[in-house]
Amino acid sequence: MTGQTPLPEATVTRLPLYLRALAQHADCDTISSQELADAAGVNPAQVRKDLSYLGSNGVRGVGYRVGPLGELIASFTASHKQWPVAIVGMGNLGQALVNHAGQRARDFVVVAGFDVDPRIVGSAVEVGDGTIEVSPIESLPQVVADTGATIAVIATPPEPAQQICDLIVASGITSILNFSAAPLVTPAGVHVRHVDLAKELHVLAYHEQRNRLREEATVS
Amino acid sequence: MTGQTPLPEATVTRLPLYLRALAQHADCDTISSQELADAAGVNPAQVRKDLSYLGSNGVRGVGYRVGPLGELIASFTASHKQWPVAIVGMGNLGQALVNHAGQRARDFVVVAGFDVDPRIVGSAVEVGDGTIEVSPIESLPQVVADTGATIAVIATPPEPAQQICDLIVASGITSILNFSAAPLVTPAGVHVRHVDLAKELHVLAYHEQRNRLREEATVS
Repeated sequence: MTGQTPLPEATVTRLPLYLRALAQHADCDTISSQELADAAGVNPAQVRKDLSYLGSNGVRGVGYRVGPLGELIASFTASHKQWPVAIVGMGNLGQALVNHAGQRARDFVVVAGFDVDPRIVGSAVEVGDGTIEVSPIESLPQVVADTGATIAVIATPPEPAQQICDLIVASGITSILNFSAAPLVTPAGVHVRHVDLAKELHVLAYHEQRNRLREEATVS
Repeated sequence: MTGQTPLPEATVTRLPLYLRALAQHADCDTISSQELADAAGVNPAQVRKDLSYLGSNGVRGVGYRVGPLGELIASFTASHKQWPVAIVGMGNLGQALVNHAGQRARDFVVVAGFDVDPRIVGSAVEVGDGTIEVSPIESLPQVVADTGATIAVIATPPEPAQQICDLIVASGITSILNFSAAPLVTPAGVHVRHVDLAKELHVLAYHEQRNRLREEATVS
């Protein structure tokens, strides 16, 4: 299924959005590239380009067949499996991610949680239908080996993040979602996605600042 | 400071990363474009292009002067102000964002929190040195007017997100950070940044899937 040539990263980030649109059209036979485009915030030409990388070409005036396209995309993002996820940092953010994964991201299951706080370590956390016990961070390599976790989420303050990242990489995990404010250095072959809350807020602040200056310019 | 022509969005997203690198070099006179590039995950040519949009050109073989460049970038992202932020959805994620904003993002101050859960509404939440009381969602327009909140964060499940977004926009806020899984429809002039957790996990799953198939191909 997944070819030898990697898809462009921007295309990869849109596949889940296409899948979501397809799920919403599950009772339809076909979906137009415009509908897919709306779901991903791009234009239809980009949709056709993205899907052509996957080997799918829509029919002019008809669009794409919903079922087969969903299966094709799922074969790339492997969304027919449940990926085992480990979360490091089980404070409010870690807890929020557990809830999210349990309720919203059916393709992922949280199999392990880690923390350094003795008040949190050993506590039970509800995960979907079951529970997991929060493990001390030192046990990460063993727990990753035992649970088969393949994706790790760092939901800690920035200070310990690099050290935790090194521990995660040493345990053999090659996919990391980083919610800490720290930029992480990793060896080649490790994929890191960085969700940087302060950055997102600063981008909005830039737009706010522009709006203000424009309003001031209009008034004066 | 901020010119009439908007900066490219990708440039805007890198400005906070440059600022962070500058803060780490606060005791230096100059910083190289390579050091700035490392902080933002781009190459030095991109750094020079980004900063030329701001009107700053480094000196060949020397780089950029740390202090003046910091002030220049701050004038665009307005990071010398404290932007008032309202958070809608004060569950684990909302709480995590309050903590984050209080401890990590000095340029933002949470001035209001909203929820629909009667167990949460009315409770006091620590914000930096003070506290705020969680307000019922119905009071959003009034509380936004009273507090002057200019940025709203949606930290709710996807189902109510569009309705909440409409309420936020009606209250006059034009900058929204969306943590819900729902895509939001907004009028022109409203900026939405979407942090989509399921999407980030799916992108990692794509890379994991590729790794597996490559390993299988190597073994067979």
